[in-house]
Amino acid sequence: MLLEAIYHRPKLNWTYAYDYKTLHIRLRSKKNDLTEVYAFTGDKYMWDESKELVPMHLMISDEMFDYWECAIQPPLRRTRYGFLLKSGDEQIWMTESEFTKERPEGPERLFEFPFINPIDVFTPPEWVKDAIFYQIFPERFANGDRSNDPEGVLPWGGKPERDNFFGGDLQGVIDHLDHLSELGITGIYFTPLFEATTNHKYDTADYMKIDPHFGDVATIKKLVNACHERGIRVLFDAVFNHSGKTFAPFVDVMEKGEKSRYKDWFHIREYPLQVKDHVPTYDTFAFEPLMPKLNTENPEVKQYLLEVAEYWIKEVGIDGWRLDVANEVDHHFWRDFRKTVKAANPDAYILGEIWHESSAWLQGDQFDAVMNYPFTEAVLDFVVRGKLDAEGFANAIGKQLSRYPQQASEVAFNLLDSHDTPRLLTLCEGNKDKMKLAALFQFTYSGTPCIYYGDEIGLDGEQDPDCRKCMEWEPERQDQNLFKFYQKLIAIRKELAPLRTGALKFLSAESGGSKLAYERILNGERVLVLLNNYDAGQTFEISVDGQIWKDALSEQTYKAAEGKLSVKLSAYEYAVLTAAN
Amino acid sequence: MLLEAIYHRPKLNWTYAYDYKTLHIRLRSKKNDLTEVYAFTGDKYMWDESKELVPMHLMISDEMFDYWECAIQPPLRRTRYGFLLKSGDEQIWMTESEFTKERPEGPERLFEFPFINPIDVFTPPEWVKDAIFYQIFPERFANGDRSNDPEGVLPWGGKPERDNFFGGDLQGVIDHLDHLSELGITGIYFTPLFEATTNHKYDTADYMKIDPHFGDVATIKKLVNACHERGIRVLFDAVFNHSGKTFAPFVDVMEKGEKSRYKDWFHIREYPLQVKDHVPTYDTFAFEPLMPKLNTENPEVKQYLLEVAEYWIKEVGIDGWRLDVANEVDHHFWRDFRKTVKAANPDAYILGEIWHESSAWLQGDQFDAVMNYPFTEAVLDFVVRGKLDAEGFANAIGKQLSRYPQQASEVAFNLLDSHDTPRLLTLCEGNKDKMKLAALFQFTYSGTPCIYYGDEIGLDGEQDPDCRKCMEWEPERQDQNLFKFYQKLIAIRKELAPLRTGALKFLSAESGGSKLAYERILNGERVLVLLNNYDAGQTFEISVDGQIWKDALSEQTYKAAEGKLSVKLSAYEYAVLTAAN
Repeated sequence: MLLEAIYHRPKLNWTYAYDYKTLHIRLRSKKNDLTEVYAFTGDKYMWDESKELVPMHLMISDEMFDYWECAIQPPLRRTRYGFLLKSGDEQIWMTESEFTKERPEGPERLFEFPFINPIDVFTPPEWVKDAIFYQIFPERFANGDRSNDPEGVLPWGGKPERDNFFGGDLQGVIDHLDHLSELGITGIYFTPLFEATTNHKYDTADYMKIDPHFGDVATIKKLVNACHERGIRVLFDAVFNHSGKTFAPFVDVMEKGEKSRYKDWFHIREYPLQVKDHVPTYDTFAFEPLMPKLNTENPEVKQYLLEVAEYWIKEVGIDGWRLDVANEVDHHFWRDFRKTVKAANPDAYILGEIWHESSAWLQGDQFDAVMNYPFTEAVLDFVVRGKLDAEGFANAIGKQLSRYPQQASEVAFNLLDSHDTPRLLTLCEGNKDKMKLAALFQFTYSGTPCIYYGDEIGLDGEQDPDCRKCMEWEPERQDQNLFKFYQKLIAIRKELAPLRTGALKFLSAESGGSKLAYERILNGERVLVLLNNYDAGQTFEISVDGQIWKDALSEQTYKAAEGKLSVKLSAYEYAVLTAAN
Repeated sequence: MLLEAIYHRPKLNWTYAYDYKTLHIRLRSKKNDLTEVYAFTGDKYMWDESKELVPMHLMISDEMFDYWECAIQPPLRRTRYGFLLKSGDEQIWMTESEFTKERPEGPERLFEFPFINPIDVFTPPEWVKDAIFYQIFPERFANGDRSNDPEGVLPWGGKPERDNFFGGDLQGVIDHLDHLSELGITGIYFTPLFEATTNHKYDTADYMKIDPHFGDVATIKKLVNACHERGIRVLFDAVFNHSGKTFAPFVDVMEKGEKSRYKDWFHIREYPLQVKDHVPTYDTFAFEPLMPKLNTENPEVKQYLLEVAEYWIKEVGIDGWRLDVANEVDHHFWRDFRKTVKAANPDAYILGEIWHESSAWLQGDQFDAVMNYPFTEAVLDFVVRGKLDAEGFANAIGKQLSRYPQQASEVAFNLLDSHDTPRLLTLCEGNKDKMKLAALFQFTYSGTPCIYYGDEIGLDGEQDPDCRKCMEWEPERQDQNLFKFYQKLIAIRKELAPLRTGALKFLSAESGGSKLAYERILNGERVLVLLNNYDAGQTFEISVDGQIWKDALSEQTYKAAEGKLSVKLSAYEYAVLTAAN
């Protein structure tokens, strides 16, 4: 046994309450090193009567490690625990302080989960597990009201530049809700809607006002109500890390310097506020002088922003917030943000923009989910860039699942592109087969998939501003085949619960291989997903119980023989199989 | 290189802000595996101009691992980082997602510390680093007021039983403050003072009232003022996990059952409240029906307890709270507790009772420190139980230091015994040489030492109730030699700043050995500590720069020859050396 590879630590992703009654306990070991792992648990105040050995199952693996897991329900919601590790005939006990050949006599030096307090249980909204999101960049989705067009607006469909405008607005979204409903969307994430100077609106001028080029509070109410009638939830973008340069308090500081009563609303290193050698004398987002960082520690600023958060939930009925540059804002702010938001709407979804490991924000006290860019990278590395083979991809996915509590993985916001990246079709160099394969994984994996507007009808685009093209509304210029594919993907995700919250197990993911097969299992219901990530046909051999299996996408059926299912998939083909008998 | 042994994860003890400007970055590797480690850091928005390789030093080791550390001060308080690992000629780069032979081109896949927000920086009160604590169990310290004695009080000095009383009170403490001042104490931790039925008072009846057998609010004010005049700070014990059975809201529930307006103040599983098969039908501390667990999630309960926390700070001027059974109370409660307490007194010290790994509470949002029982166990295993040799002891200490941010280790509450354990002298089977050796380590190690009342004059006692004996006030029955030893230990700790906050390095800690030598270094000032944990004399050979070294305890001087200091210590002897030239 490679003891150096064994890892466990209380809390985080290692021991956490999945719900009010259930603890998940996990342990890491070197890949293929241990053959059996047990959690040794009990109530410390009644050790001898309550102690037991609970088998742990191999939850997932990555490149170097296996992750073992068990779920326990301690009757009094508290437990001490250690581990029994076995590798063939060899066995060793693990306590909080040591590895030992001897079974620990008492609970004194074991690990502890002291008590499951319900308020500490990480509980994302139930609906998010089932949601299908669609991201809209409002300036480019549809122009439904010519009267509010910005000055110098360009004809719809022109080339997007950093500073140009095409007149997209909220009425345009209202006008095209049928498109979303047909597709099967149940949630919209809007990039910012508040008054700002740019086309992307990430430089807020007024957090309490819809940008007049988009509409007004009446238009957004109309839009949110229309969405709700269709079963579509709505997320707003909270740009609370920084304001825009035209935000009144910042204008005041620019004018009055140290005498401004708003000077403590920002992080100012030196007066007057200016840019010296490309570095502003005040903290900003990146080095962008247009975006002064807000001092969210200042109680006035905090109160103002929390009022903003509450106002749009209560006044307009939005269903959650996506938090821009979320990891640069202090944790105290986000904790109070969560309290405010959940008090206003206990079912609101809080989605942070963090591109990296996000454990510190995903413990139940801050966010429900983050924008899952590590997922994006893994899928692109496998399907698009050829950087990962099937084994490498399975390992990358395993690593992600191991990092977070299960409830976080169930609502991870899984995107393949956004307004901040090149579009999926462009990343795929126009290869729609690859694009479909990437989307197929996205829609058959745990977490909430999000489609960036227009991907579903074949919009392409390089890194921004090019990825922010006008939506194509001419039916003959839309890729209807692609639309139908996404429609079908969404339909099967809605139909097959295991695709949403089933346990994941890779069945085929070989080194050097391009065949990926995995199953999702929920309450005994098994869905097999096969992806042929190769430019020629390949045959999958999968061990199964059932006789007849049916592809939920193509409706084709396959018959197993002697417990083996043999499925030949042509280049970049895929199958989502359920037992038909 | 054993890559399976490498560990780093953002936040916690691995990357944290030590202060507003400084980040500490740590990495774990297999012991003696790597020869050089570098952090590869830079500003992600200006990567090429800012990137640099920062050498990491070997901070500490434990049985299996080395822990490397560096401190950086990113000019804009944000950093991306990876690592360069070297082992002889071999080298490898580590990013957030992989190990790679190639130097990462850009910062995209590196780890991230997004921004140092001051409010998130873990900042324990400065004074705690320098404090010398003394724990008082008030019923047994001194009887200064016969008029408030409980009924059936026994003569001072009798055998302590679970339920008997000897009449100790607050006036008794006031009367003996000279004893503490002579010793050098600068902080008192009182076990509970509020009205309760037991002699230990952990079953609170009224959180707003001093137990009448101890005195009243006037007496405690007099006591706290007298302490403050002497430069002694005062901690109260907050028993907020559970109340006593005589706490009015619980009495109401016992009487009225489901109709009580206080029924949601507790966790009741079944009415009527009773004990079935030794298990109460309501949650309690352990299985103790006298101690019903409080529902700290209930806003009414929370508000009440936070008012208690604030009241005693504002009304009486206490300097902090020790939190009983702290890990069974919810994290939300403790976060708000910290806000309330620090608002009332920004310098207040918050000390949690947690016997196990406490990372989840030591991130700056909850406690300043925990009662460091893992420290206790390590010292006892080495000095008393012979379970650890010098190497094993150094490893156990290294493991602890590696687990927490530096600021947590600087204020760890290091105790060797308490009202919950046998007394140190008894653990040492009456061997005062061993007792002194244990205390010597305690007073020359980072963290705040605490003496359990009476240890300093030779009080002994088995597991409670025996460890709660009456304090001995007859000078001829006090061990004056022991008192002088503690007095001297305290004096040198106060005199030599490196003993408080200097970096620790073990110089001699051999496998199978009983010679322990280490240095504490602060700003170039070096203190050498030598402990001979053996029943015969042993000679220490230490590499030094200075010529003449003086033992701060015995005043004896030693002369180095050819850069080597040779010090012979007789059985269980010790030395605390500083350069005299």
